[in-house]
Amino acid sequence: MRITDIREQTLAMSSTMRNASIGFGGMTASALTLVSDVVRNGKPVVGLAYDSVGRYGHGGLLRERFIPRLLAADADEYRDGSGTNFDPFKVWAIVMRDEKPGGHGERPGAVGLIDAAVWDLVAKLEDKPLWYVLAERFGGKLNDVRVSVYATGGHYREADDLAHLREEVRRNAALGYKKIKIKIGGVPLAQDMRRIEAAIDVLGSGAALAVDCNGALSKAAALDLLTALSTYGLAWVEEPVDPLDFELHKELAQCCALPLATGENIFSAADTLNLIRYAGLRPDRDILQMDVSLSYGIVEYLRMLSIIESHGWSRRQCVPHAGHLLSFNVAAGLGLGGHETSPTSNLPLMQPLEDGYVRPGNAPGVGFEQAKNFYAIFGGLLS
Amino acid sequence: MRITDIREQTLAMSSTMRNASIGFGGMTASALTLVSDVVRNGKPVVGLAYDSVGRYGHGGLLRERFIPRLLAADADEYRDGSGTNFDPFKVWAIVMRDEKPGGHGERPGAVGLIDAAVWDLVAKLEDKPLWYVLAERFGGKLNDVRVSVYATGGHYREADDLAHLREEVRRNAALGYKKIKIKIGGVPLAQDMRRIEAAIDVLGSGAALAVDCNGALSKAAALDLLTALSTYGLAWVEEPVDPLDFELHKELAQCCALPLATGENIFSAADTLNLIRYAGLRPDRDILQMDVSLSYGIVEYLRMLSIIESHGWSRRQCVPHAGHLLSFNVAAGLGLGGHETSPTSNLPLMQPLEDGYVRPGNAPGVGFEQAKNFYAIFGGLLS
Repeated sequence: MRITDIREQTLAMSSTMRNASIGFGGMTASALTLVSDVVRNGKPVVGLAYDSVGRYGHGGLLRERFIPRLLAADADEYRDGSGTNFDPFKVWAIVMRDEKPGGHGERPGAVGLIDAAVWDLVAKLEDKPLWYVLAERFGGKLNDVRVSVYATGGHYREADDLAHLREEVRRNAALGYKKIKIKIGGVPLAQDMRRIEAAIDVLGSGAALAVDCNGALSKAAALDLLTALSTYGLAWVEEPVDPLDFELHKELAQCCALPLATGENIFSAADTLNLIRYAGLRPDRDILQMDVSLSYGIVEYLRMLSIIESHGWSRRQCVPHAGHLLSFNVAAGLGLGGHETSPTSNLPLMQPLEDGYVRPGNAPGVGFEQAKNFYAIFGGLLS
Repeated sequence: MRITDIREQTLAMSSTMRNASIGFGGMTASALTLVSDVVRNGKPVVGLAYDSVGRYGHGGLLRERFIPRLLAADADEYRDGSGTNFDPFKVWAIVMRDEKPGGHGERPGAVGLIDAAVWDLVAKLEDKPLWYVLAERFGGKLNDVRVSVYATGGHYREADDLAHLREEVRRNAALGYKKIKIKIGGVPLAQDMRRIEAAIDVLGSGAALAVDCNGALSKAAALDLLTALSTYGLAWVEEPVDPLDFELHKELAQCCALPLATGENIFSAADTLNLIRYAGLRPDRDILQMDVSLSYGIVEYLRMLSIIESHGWSRRQCVPHAGHLLSFNVAAGLGLGGHETSPTSNLPLMQPLEDGYVRPGNAPGVGFEQAKNFYAIFGGLLS
C-alpha cells in the first residue's frame, strides 16, 4: 500500500473584496490530491485537500520541496503499524525532513495541505468521516456532536459599501446564523462605526456581532477603537494589531474588557507557545483562531492544543480560521469551541443550521465529494 | 526609467554535508536578475541577487507573487524623487502589497532577493559599491573601513568526520582566519566534545572557536552542552535550541556565561522585536545573526537595526548569517560587528584577509561580477 501520485492545482480566487490589510484581486488557493494504490469500486482511493484562503496558494513550495520528498519515500516509512492504513505523523516527519527550525510562514500551508489530504485518505480507508476518526483517536465525543458556527464576511466593497453590508448581514441572519463577523479597520473610525451600527441595527444586538481588523491598526488606533466599542457588548474584536506584537496585545487586554480574538496568522506550535506565554490573553474570554490547514495541518494542530491546555486554557476557546470542511471536521472531532464559515464560499457547510449549530455528516473523509462545487475545485486534478 | 524584466533561476547546491538539523543533499538556492532599461556600454544595467543557502531557493514564490507584482507596477511608483534612480523602499512596498501581517517564513527570502537586486542596481546606477552607498545614506564610515570576518564550516561528514574536520580547520587557519566556527549538536555529546577538542588543538585556543548547534538540542541536552563547555572559553555557542523558544534562551543565558548567538532563523522585524524583548539575551556579549537576504532584504534589516538600537544594543553585536557578498556589503556599509564567510562557497570574498579583517572593494554594486564563479551562478540568466 503506497502513495502513487500527488497533484496540485492553483486556483484563482479573484474577488473585489478588501479587508483592512489586503485586497483579494490576485488571491489564489491550492487544491491537492494524494492518490493511493488502494482500489475501491474500480478507482484508486484519493485524499483531498483545499487551501484556507487569504495567504495565497502553495503550489510552488509543494512542487519544489514537499511533494518530491513524500514521493521519494519508501511506503514502509509512512504506513501505520497495522499496514492497512497510512500514518499521518510519519508522513509529516517525512515531508519536514531537512527543514530548519523557525520561519513558519508559507511552509506550514504547503505541509498542511499534504497533512489534510493524508487525513482525508486515512478516514476514507476506514470508511468513516474524518471528524469521527479524530474523535475516536483523540478522545472526542462520538454521539450527539454539534458545532457552533458563525458567518464571516462584511468585507469592504468599492461601491455602495454600507448597503452591501446591511444586505449581507440580513441574508446571513436569515440563513440562521446567530453570530456574524464583519471587517473593520480599513477606513477612518467614524466610518467603521457606521458599519458596526448598521450591522447591530440589522442583528438587534451587539452580542451577535464580531469585528475583524486584520492586524492593520497602530497602537493608538487600536486603543481608540476599543474605547469607542467599550459599550457595544460585541462578541469579540479580532486581530486589532500585528499578530506578532505580543506586548501590544497584552496592553490591549489589560485595558479592554471586550474579548479579543487572534491566531489566524500564527502558523506553528512554537509561535502559539509564544502567543500564550506573552500576549496576556485571557482564558476566560479570548479566542484562539489558529488555522489548521495553514499551520502544518492536524498533526501540528494537536501540538498546539496540547500547548494551550498545558497553560490552563480550554480547547473550547479555539475557533479556527478558515470556513472550510477540514476545519469543521477538526472542530467537531476534537471538540473545539466553534467554526468559522463563509456563506459565500465555494465549499459551504452541507448540513443545515439548527439554532446556530451544525451537526457533522456521515460522508467518509472530509466530505468534499458532497459539496456542490466539488468539480470546480478538484475536477482538474481527478481527470 | 523602469524595470523591464526579472528572471529567477533555482540552482542545485547538492552536498553531502550535514549539520545537527538538516542534510544538504537536496538544497537549492535562487539567483535573480532585475533588468533595467538604462543602457551603459551598450548593455542594460542589471541588478543581481543570490540566495543565502540553507532554506532552499525561492523560485516558486517569486514567480507566483512577487515578480508579477513588481512588473505590473507603473515605473512612477518605484522611481526615487530625483527620477534618476530606483527607490528600494518603494519597491519593497509594492512587492508586499496584499500580503497579510505575520507568517515570516519563505516570503522574507523571496522579497529579500528582489530587495537585494534593487540595491545592487541602485549602487550600479550611482557607479559606487553598495557598501559605500549604504554608508553614505545611513551614516556609516566612508574611509578606512574593514570588517571582521570568521570562517564557517565544520559540517558533519559521512566518512572520516574527525580527519576532515581537522584538515578543514587547519586550512582555514592557514588562510588567515582568526575565528572559525564548526557544527555540533547532531551526535552524542562525547563525540561532539572530540570534535571541539580537535578544533581547539589545531587552533591553539578556545577563544578562536565558535560552535553551532543549528537549533537542534532539547533543553536537557543544551544544559548538558553548556555545562560541558563552560571552561573552554569559546567565542560563542550558536543556536543551541529552537530559535523561537525565547523562554528557553532566557534560561540558558541566565545559567551560562558563554556568549550565545542566534537570529539566523528569525526573518522579520516583528520577530526580532520579540527576540530582543523575551529571550534574555545580553547586549554586552550575545550575537544577533539575522540574515539580510532571508529577512526581506536591506529595507527590513534597517528596521531590525532600529529595533535593537532602541533597546540598548549596539549594531556591533550584529554578525549576519550568510557568507556572501551582499551581507559583506551590509556589514561594511552599516558598521556591523562582523561577517560570516564560507571559504568553500561559490562566492568567496575577493579581498585578502588582513589579521582577520577584510576591506571592502571598489567594484560598483554588490560586486558579483568580480567573483570567479559569477558565470556559474548568473550565466544562465544573462544570456
